[in-house]
Amino acid sequence: MHAASTAVLISEVGPRDGLQSIKTIMLTANKKLWVDALFDSGIREIEVASFVPAKMLPQMADASEIARYAKTLNGLTVLALVPNLKGAEHAILAGVDKITIPVSASAAHSLANVRKTREEMVEELKRIVEFRNAHAPSIRIEVGIATAFGCTLQGLVPEDDVIWLADQVVRAGVDEAGLSDTTGYANPAQIKKLFRRLRHAIGDKAGAAHLHNTRGLGLANCLAAYEEGVTSFDSSMGGLGGCPYAPGASGNVVTEDLVFMFEAMGIETGVDLEKLFKAREALRAGLPHEVIYGMTPEAGLPKGFDVSKRDKR
Amino acid sequence: MHAASTAVLISEVGPRDGLQSIKTIMLTANKKLWVDALFDSGIREIEVASFVPAKMLPQMADASEIARYAKTLNGLTVLALVPNLKGAEHAILAGVDKITIPVSASAAHSLANVRKTREEMVEELKRIVEFRNAHAPSIRIEVGIATAFGCTLQGLVPEDDVIWLADQVVRAGVDEAGLSDTTGYANPAQIKKLFRRLRHAIGDKAGAAHLHNTRGLGLANCLAAYEEGVTSFDSSMGGLGGCPYAPGASGNVVTEDLVFMFEAMGIETGVDLEKLFKAREALRAGLPHEVIYGMTPEAGLPKGFDVSKRDKR
Repeated sequence: MHAASTAVLISEVGPRDGLQSIKTIMLTANKKLWVDALFDSGIREIEVASFVPAKMLPQMADASEIARYAKTLNGLTVLALVPNLKGAEHAILAGVDKITIPVSASAAHSLANVRKTREEMVEELKRIVEFRNAHAPSIRIEVGIATAFGCTLQGLVPEDDVIWLADQVVRAGVDEAGLSDTTGYANPAQIKKLFRRLRHAIGDKAGAAHLHNTRGLGLANCLAAYEEGVTSFDSSMGGLGGCPYAPGASGNVVTEDLVFMFEAMGIETGVDLEKLFKAREALRAGLPHEVIYGMTPEAGLPKGFDVSKRDKR
Repeated sequence: MHAASTAVLISEVGPRDGLQSIKTIMLTANKKLWVDALFDSGIREIEVASFVPAKMLPQMADASEIARYAKTLNGLTVLALVPNLKGAEHAILAGVDKITIPVSASAAHSLANVRKTREEMVEELKRIVEFRNAHAPSIRIEVGIATAFGCTLQGLVPEDDVIWLADQVVRAGVDEAGLSDTTGYANPAQIKKLFRRLRHAIGDKAGAAHLHNTRGLGLANCLAAYEEGVTSFDSSMGGLGGCPYAPGASGNVVTEDLVFMFEAMGIETGVDLEKLFKAREALRAGLPHEVIYGMTPEAGLPKGFDVSKRDKR
């Protein structure tokens, strides 16, 4: 397995997080070409869709078709976001390998976002786990703890709330719980402290870092998380879904810059940077009117940058 | 002294590095207002000008006047760049506290940039030190080792070359030698390794980190340098002098984002973020047609972000 030899896992969230954040609807055929190109560059986990009613998110109306298509790529972990049991049922029916469920650590954000308290979300998780156990026991369930580093509604989110929630979701039976900086509030010291507490609380069920670049600290925060032992990182090609270098944006960390940082440090991502840059063409072809960000592809790789070892895969 | 209580020193290079990189010439009166505003926010070291012939850099024609003006601000370290003995004489005559001299670790870059070999630059340094010792012994001399992390001309710059040069410049009598990522090639692992070697080689004469954001790694690299014990950082308000988020740019780390990172981590910079954001108005007033970057000022401080302790200064 290729994944076993990578030091970090880059989980590309563009096809879900990116596409659902913009108005334009990418054609199904273009989505497939983009997923192909991402896979071809060495990306081995892709969040391909969100399983929500098409009425709510028409961008995700072809979620099942994209998930089924992605499953034909050998070695790819096909991940989908689901907000509830209904979505989980559809995702599992479509054959995904893994589902991810956002649960907010901020009481205010939870109510505003999903009209459920945090406790109600934990109950929903239990139903999802029960369904999974009964019908598709091999499928992994991940929770992303949203607003873990602060909330635009309530401001401070106590660390104890985050750790309490992580413990609750693990008790509910999920396989891993990661931390999301939904609001772009996190700083490196906070990242280290909270991921350390997370690991102490839930051990090897501590999951991915989903970090934003809203205030420019995205990569610094990823570095801090890596130094704290995190090995799985969410990011979005081209920072799709909003300018990662500007406000009001979803501001996901840009995959290309993140992969460059790790590869430059000698930390294997399994991703071929030149092929990754080439995959931007598939994204552009599918969204010709959208701005595609990424500083490393624009500046180019440093002169003499050693990509030779990647050719040996 | 205020500086004694700061955990890191932010050295603002905008009035030199920023202004010399753009075509527009800021009026002397506007430069003074900008320096005032920077000082008022708590910035305690400003690289105010480059002492080069006005023919070469008309943006710096008022270098002496700006330096003299900056010296009226009590507690400010007035820093100026000088490329040679002539510039040093003028800067010292204008009363600066400190001069900084760029010396390239890349043999190719040194020749292309100043038409001198590295060895010839070291000889020039000796003449500058001699002049300083004879005429103004209290003035500090800093060297910024340029292209320390790679060169657009020769590619790889061997670490041994950087450390050899650092040793040479210290032997020439300078007070400190820092490392500059002139090309935006650096990564956090490299930053840690090279600053560690620098400290081993020249001890407490190891100086500032001058890092760029060309490939998006600027703040991650600053974090790495900080973790390696670096306490002095160059940055430019608004990323002036080129888009710090795009290629072909000078791409200095943005002061506002850098200060936010440290302050959010609880590391004192001595800078009041809100006043720093306000100082952007002075910059804008002086350069109404220039793009002023900065993600934190655009996104705003996180809700509930504690700036109260800064009010107690």
